[in-house]
Amino acid sequence: MISSPSLSAAQHLDTDWLDSLLSKLSQFGALDNGGVDRQALSATELDARAWLIDEARSLGCEIYTDSAANLFFRRPGRQDLPPVTTGSHIDTQPGGGNFDGCYGVLAGLACLKALNDAGITTERPVEVAIWTNEEGSRFAPGAMGSSVFTEPDTLAAFLNVTGEDGVTFAQALELHHQRFPGLAQRPNRDMAGFVELHIEQGPLLEHLELPLAVVSGIQGVRWYQVQCQGESAHAGTTPMALRQDAMQLARNVASAIEASTLNPGDDALRLTFGRWQVTPNAVNTIPSRASFTLDFRHPDPAVLAQFDARIAGLAGDRVSVAPLLSCEPVVFAPQINQVLNATAQALDIPCTGLLSGAFHDAMHLAGHCPTSMLFVPSHRGISHNPAEYTEPRALHTGARALAGALTELSDTI
Amino acid sequence: MISSPSLSAAQHLDTDWLDSLLSKLSQFGALDNGGVDRQALSATELDARAWLIDEARSLGCEIYTDSAANLFFRRPGRQDLPPVTTGSHIDTQPGGGNFDGCYGVLAGLACLKALNDAGITTERPVEVAIWTNEEGSRFAPGAMGSSVFTEPDTLAAFLNVTGEDGVTFAQALELHHQRFPGLAQRPNRDMAGFVELHIEQGPLLEHLELPLAVVSGIQGVRWYQVQCQGESAHAGTTPMALRQDAMQLARNVASAIEASTLNPGDDALRLTFGRWQVTPNAVNTIPSRASFTLDFRHPDPAVLAQFDARIAGLAGDRVSVAPLLSCEPVVFAPQINQVLNATAQALDIPCTGLLSGAFHDAMHLAGHCPTSMLFVPSHRGISHNPAEYTEPRALHTGARALAGALTELSDTI
Repeated sequence: MISSPSLSAAQHLDTDWLDSLLSKLSQFGALDNGGVDRQALSATELDARAWLIDEARSLGCEIYTDSAANLFFRRPGRQDLPPVTTGSHIDTQPGGGNFDGCYGVLAGLACLKALNDAGITTERPVEVAIWTNEEGSRFAPGAMGSSVFTEPDTLAAFLNVTGEDGVTFAQALELHHQRFPGLAQRPNRDMAGFVELHIEQGPLLEHLELPLAVVSGIQGVRWYQVQCQGESAHAGTTPMALRQDAMQLARNVASAIEASTLNPGDDALRLTFGRWQVTPNAVNTIPSRASFTLDFRHPDPAVLAQFDARIAGLAGDRVSVAPLLSCEPVVFAPQINQVLNATAQALDIPCTGLLSGAFHDAMHLAGHCPTSMLFVPSHRGISHNPAEYTEPRALHTGARALAGALTELSDTI
Repeated sequence: MISSPSLSAAQHLDTDWLDSLLSKLSQFGALDNGGVDRQALSATELDARAWLIDEARSLGCEIYTDSAANLFFRRPGRQDLPPVTTGSHIDTQPGGGNFDGCYGVLAGLACLKALNDAGITTERPVEVAIWTNEEGSRFAPGAMGSSVFTEPDTLAAFLNVTGEDGVTFAQALELHHQRFPGLAQRPNRDMAGFVELHIEQGPLLEHLELPLAVVSGIQGVRWYQVQCQGESAHAGTTPMALRQDAMQLARNVASAIEASTLNPGDDALRLTFGRWQVTPNAVNTIPSRASFTLDFRHPDPAVLAQFDARIAGLAGDRVSVAPLLSCEPVVFAPQINQVLNATAQALDIPCTGLLSGAFHDAMHLAGHCPTSMLFVPSHRGISHNPAEYTEPRALHTGARALAGALTELSDTI
């Protein structure tokens, strides 16, 4: 069971207002194809931030920023305790959709309005965060804002990161400061809990015909580059027995990895060979070099370690492997998920547990305070694409669950 | 047995002079890495042609050209009959070597000098041809010169072909005419026989430790483009069972083609998947499209037809196939090869029969007059590369065999 103020907050969620916020935000950087290009700290994103700051002020929020240009819209509670925070990001991929990140931020604002409309004063402050540069599309890597918030020492390494436009992250932060000179710094980094509401970016909820998931954690990830050597030679004159075809070797290595790794009984396992490069890549020349990337994901550190060992064992005369990325699995806070599940139950929202296969700002927050996520369905799992879509009904359901849960958490955590 | 003038011509071959010609030609378009860039009808190639015309004049040759700027250096015979012709090309790939084509032209000139030095007058004229644009690197397709010589109607379709420098083949022909305005047109297209001496561009002669091959024909070739469709999706969020990975499909299709086509007992068969393209080609995205090219070669029309049927049978919902090129096998003239083998035997040159896996101008000539080829070894089969190399000894052996064979043919064919 959840408290009656929590139920009331959910019931007061203004779905029309949420729809209008989504519609307005989609105009900042709108593309002709219905998608959006809103790069982190670009002029377009600063315009969107200015609009959102105005909306938050209208709701009576305190506005804060920090050294990574994260924004915090805080609705005060009865006590000046560390807040319960929600939020996500509003930067997008170059040809992105209108829900990835944006939905979590705007649903957060709709929760603050619901608390206003229901006349509720929570015990702790409730806060909406806009994390800077989650996509990593202008400045690599992604999730810089949440990384700096949770580990301020990481900022130094990001300052000289330069986007394709020649602008450094440091310069982009300075432009943000010039645009919003009056914003106060967040008084400290305290946070009682963090809940990120996001589109699933995968097909499972739609497949299960469920409107909501409580996320149990984020999969661990390994990226490798596998490179195979051969010898370039004429496709017509070189007998099959005298060839060293690098791409044939690469295909065989990929098949061997599939055979040793795939496990039809393991629903959590993900294995993708996404990027391939062949040299010289000519119709009538035997490939001299072929490389491919491996993206492997699993929630179990033991399975990840076993995979690492197997990949290391591939290296040989004609095969080399190089790690590109390694992220350990994240387990979200059970005490948060208990509240998320109770809220869904109280609101009669059918709900399942799910692992996140994608990265989110919540990944960094999980090391900072009790953290979890809620997912709503993504139509056909499509994301980072103008065709990204979630039915309004599911968007409303997710936002209601968030309103109830934030209220409940602010009083109980 | 071959005649004593044929033996005498072979014995008079001036190998030092041949070496000096190879060395001089390599300076036209020389690259720092030891290779050469001498594009068809470029200023560099015209300079090389001017030098070769002077050399041919010094040997007492009549010089002819034709509508495709092919050059013919003719040493008159006792009678004004159709000549026995040899030759090849002097254009190169952008990063080509110093033997592909060049060797055949210069060895031909060395044969004319050997006839002079031996004081031989042949029955028929003996002629050296320089075919225009064999490589197809400036103007596509290749072997334009020999194509137009054997089928003049093909010229019309080539005139508007434009190189990367914006120059059309017609303009390049006009520049050739301006550079060599005094050249007579070849009186007709008559030719009693054609023998092309060339480097193997494959590893077999070196592998067999033999200095010479009599070429029995040119393999038939099929080029196909196979395209596989999938669905782009997030590598982390999309369960294995819900994926349509285009590259996984492409790898499986390639393996199935290998399994059904490769035949370890068939030395003549060649199968190459040379060019691969993956979309969107990102580490963490399941490929939505993957395509690869097939290069299949075989001397037997029935095997080629069987392969065509098998490839056509691959097409389906998610797989499409498009033919890119189809060339029927060429069988060289037995009466020419009889003389080539007899000459090698008379000169004590160990020799084998070989199929050509690569295209040559002789492919077009074979439809015009009795035609064949001789191959000398290519070190490690390397060609179209600055590292292209044939030992001087093998170059000399090949040229001697050619001198003997041309003399024999001019008196007997």
